[in-house]
Amino acid sequence: MNIRALVFDVFGTVVDWRSGVARDIRRLVSDVDAEAFADAWRSQYLPSLDRVRRGELPWTNLDELHRASLDELLAEYGVPDTPEGVRAELVLAWHRLDPWPDSVPGLERLKKRFVIASLSNGHVALLVNMAKHAGLPWDTVLSAELFGHYKGDPEAYLGAARLLGLQPEQVMMAAAHVDDLAAARACGLRTAYVHRPQEYGSKAVLRPPSNDPKADVSVASLTELADHLTA
Amino acid sequence: MNIRALVFDVFGTVVDWRSGVARDIRRLVSDVDAEAFADAWRSQYLPSLDRVRRGELPWTNLDELHRASLDELLAEYGVPDTPEGVRAELVLAWHRLDPWPDSVPGLERLKKRFVIASLSNGHVALLVNMAKHAGLPWDTVLSAELFGHYKGDPEAYLGAARLLGLQPEQVMMAAAHVDDLAAARACGLRTAYVHRPQEYGSKAVLRPPSNDPKADVSVASLTELADHLTA
Repeated sequence: MNIRALVFDVFGTVVDWRSGVARDIRRLVSDVDAEAFADAWRSQYLPSLDRVRRGELPWTNLDELHRASLDELLAEYGVPDTPEGVRAELVLAWHRLDPWPDSVPGLERLKKRFVIASLSNGHVALLVNMAKHAGLPWDTVLSAELFGHYKGDPEAYLGAARLLGLQPEQVMMAAAHVDDLAAARACGLRTAYVHRPQEYGSKAVLRPPSNDPKADVSVASLTELADHLTA
Repeated sequence: MNIRALVFDVFGTVVDWRSGVARDIRRLVSDVDAEAFADAWRSQYLPSLDRVRRGELPWTNLDELHRASLDELLAEYGVPDTPEGVRAELVLAWHRLDPWPDSVPGLERLKKRFVIASLSNGHVALLVNMAKHAGLPWDTVLSAELFGHYKGDPEAYLGAARLLGLQPEQVMMAAAHVDDLAAARACGLRTAYVHRPQEYGSKAVLRPPSNDPKADVSVASLTELADHLTA
């Protein structure tokens, strides 16, 4: 392998969206099960993206998609009178998520040897805010927004390689989600599976597989990824 | 002023292109005046960009523009048999330029308070390579390439504000070139003039002005800019 750059899925792979979003729901909305609400909110994510990918919606950024699903959920959860200011603040919960404990140490080590960048469905502003909050040491922020295509679409993966001036096989995509990796692999990128069993909490019914046999490497942390790639 | 982000011109403002390019010319090409060659190469820069801006050329990145002008100059300077490998290496000289002594300390301080990003005509890959080489601690790399418009065109300045999720007046453009600042100001950005009297060497006939009365602030270094904005 002649890898020059690593691009990372962010939500779930680098940061713990569930705890962070639940924390702000608990802080800002009374009388709802914060973790259940976070899960329900996240479950609207892929269907929202798919509406954009299918062309049913024009390009819509994650703040706007999050806001639309939030409005629906607040009504469903019996808190339809949640004020505008609180709704705006809740959408920003997705900008200030905490990293998994291994994320920053792993990225710092990988950065010494490779170009490291996000490759997220979050928009640039969200990812820049998150990097500031979480101390993520990206060389640059890459986002689906730059390509007008959410991940799953080849434009996102090929666009990342193109902007980095690299061939797809010189770029490794790291993600905790096998479908993201499968789409990256179909574009010729190398892939690293990151096992994040806590992404949906300790009581989740559906658990992610401990490894992805189709990936070039499967690891349980970004520090383990650094061990593999910089040994 | 309610500034949230600073975007920086790079060539001349943050890095010393002339010394870096001359260094590689001296190393790779015999019997030419390296500084004069660097100046001549740089002088082809704006006319090249203008051909793209006027639509006479399709979008062409800086490596490609540098290569075309290099080929002409090597013939003019009497070294037309310079091998392909050397030409490719010389183009990459523009990726590994050294910062001015105040650049990294100033950026590190500004980064604590603001989002900091490049806003350069260099393409993303060049800027990422340069940041690695020079230790420039960008929160993200922004480039004319992302907008398909070189600076001077409003799309570059407004695109930077849009990607950062900010209004133009929340973004300050810092540059050593008054025309870059004038174009940014016309788009509603705040502006900081950085006096770089050594950009064209100590013997240059045309010297930049010591300050720009139209800019919000004029400084002689990025550390002085940090003094102004973080006081």
